[in-house]
Amino acid sequence: MFVVSEEVCRKVVSRADAFDAVQAVFAAMARGDARNFPVVREALGHADALYGFKSGFDRAGLALGVKSGGYWPGNAQKGLTNHQSTVFLFDPDTGQLQALVGGNYLTAIRTAAASAVSIAHLARKDARVLGMIGAGHQAQFQLRAAAEQRQFEKVIAWNLHPEKLSILEAVATELGLPFEAVGRQQLAEQADTIITITSAHEALLDSGWIRPGTHIACMGTDTAGKQELDPQLFSDASVFTDELAQSITIGEAQHAFKAGQLQEADITALGAVINGDHPGRVTDDEITVFDGTGVGLQDLAVAAVALRVACEEGDAKEIAL
Amino acid sequence: MFVVSEEVCRKVVSRADAFDAVQAVFAAMARGDARNFPVVREALGHADALYGFKSGFDRAGLALGVKSGGYWPGNAQKGLTNHQSTVFLFDPDTGQLQALVGGNYLTAIRTAAASAVSIAHLARKDARVLGMIGAGHQAQFQLRAAAEQRQFEKVIAWNLHPEKLSILEAVATELGLPFEAVGRQQLAEQADTIITITSAHEALLDSGWIRPGTHIACMGTDTAGKQELDPQLFSDASVFTDELAQSITIGEAQHAFKAGQLQEADITALGAVINGDHPGRVTDDEITVFDGTGVGLQDLAVAAVALRVACEEGDAKEIAL
Repeated sequence: MFVVSEEVCRKVVSRADAFDAVQAVFAAMARGDARNFPVVREALGHADALYGFKSGFDRAGLALGVKSGGYWPGNAQKGLTNHQSTVFLFDPDTGQLQALVGGNYLTAIRTAAASAVSIAHLARKDARVLGMIGAGHQAQFQLRAAAEQRQFEKVIAWNLHPEKLSILEAVATELGLPFEAVGRQQLAEQADTIITITSAHEALLDSGWIRPGTHIACMGTDTAGKQELDPQLFSDASVFTDELAQSITIGEAQHAFKAGQLQEADITALGAVINGDHPGRVTDDEITVFDGTGVGLQDLAVAAVALRVACEEGDAKEIAL
Repeated sequence: MFVVSEEVCRKVVSRADAFDAVQAVFAAMARGDARNFPVVREALGHADALYGFKSGFDRAGLALGVKSGGYWPGNAQKGLTNHQSTVFLFDPDTGQLQALVGGNYLTAIRTAAASAVSIAHLARKDARVLGMIGAGHQAQFQLRAAAEQRQFEKVIAWNLHPEKLSILEAVATELGLPFEAVGRQQLAEQADTIITITSAHEALLDSGWIRPGTHIACMGTDTAGKQELDPQLFSDASVFTDELAQSITIGEAQHAFKAGQLQEADITALGAVINGDHPGRVTDDEITVFDGTGVGLQDLAVAAVALRVACEEGDAKEIAL
């Protein structure tokens, strides 16, 4: 059994690796070669914690395993990360535990990779202004990954707490991109690619504000009750997701689906676009929405990369069980 | 993070430890202090494997975690155990991974402990003949644990493949108990305590064979479709279980429940007997059935013991994550 630490993950898994792994597993899901298992997510009634598991099996990539962990809101006060997660990989041929892989950094880059994959396949080729809704820890990862997909010339951003925008500005500056703090409506009116990455519980973007041709990667909503977009947008846009079942229950599409503004048949797996089974964006005027809900197979895909590279480079610790 | 190997588990967790841990967690479940989370169980469509998770949180014992693993039927040919499992424990205050504990031996002793706890609380005090239906690997653990609960004077046993009975006979002999191979009807007519531990899919014991006063611990049925008892028995007997929700869906009671011969209200949590909230067996003539389905909290309870004792005795390996 191998242990791949958080530190080693940061060293051996690049953004490009995460992009390739997530793109491949979305494709495998759409082909029916990879399957996520039911998600377990429970409020513990202790330390205000949410705890659970995301798991699955990728027959193509031969990745079997589970990401366990959750959210402990009191951790920051103790000098720990609030989100805690670990990925466990098993040998699909024998069921033996193969590796234990730190999951905090991997969760951040696989989430960033998902919006980046959506931008690569759905945003207009001539997209130039990237709009960020949200400026928390995860937003920095999203910005770095997105910036590599198009020749952006500017980053504009809004956050509920404007004082946090300076951290995002520093990332943009590092990437050589001009940065501007804007209002939400202004952001929608100027950006051609938008990433939402907040923990909001109400619409932050009106459908009337969004210009034709915009791509929106909606990454914050992963639980019943969360919301970032005006549900009306789902009637106007072409809608894509990582996983349909999650999209209509815990993803951004839950609200439009519940209101009857959207049917299951209206939502396309991003993997089908990657596989060439769906054209993706057809016109320059089309609004595309990617509902990124976050699936266990993304975690397994990047953890499998971490394990492989760490073993190749002698960075995995082997342990007798 | 600590690693407690299979070998260390065998060294540090005794049958008495497992009995105490399982008894305590059954009691906590019945008080509402401990809760099992939804079980994930999936056919992989690869290597004929069944794979999944059992998880839960014991607020009283502060045990949080998951047992992952499954059944790989081709393993024996490779010199590996067909059942593969590992328990992961997390710190309920922070969510950090606390320990990785080998789960194969622990699964065997926690399953044996469950039937032993049922015998301790439900079998007649003057029980003298222990009947074993099934003689596989797990049957040996059940026999050893059961033998400590009453002053048994004889073990009688039946198995689908009679040639395997010699292994069970060797255990009985080691325990100083006379052993006899018998037919199923003969077993029911002579035993006052019966353990069923097979992978049968049809009734092995007719209800008409069972004598008044018998206690039956039904331990083999843990999946929809499996069966060991005549469902009629559930109408005649007082029925107890580890967990009601599992009992009527994947436990032995599933058949009687589906046939309408048994209602949820007819089934008592064994923990309620342990807590003194239910009298358990009331008369010497009563037939008692314990439907042991196997819950994640049992795994966490014995794994927590393994971790504690291994740390005390310097047998846990500490690893930086």
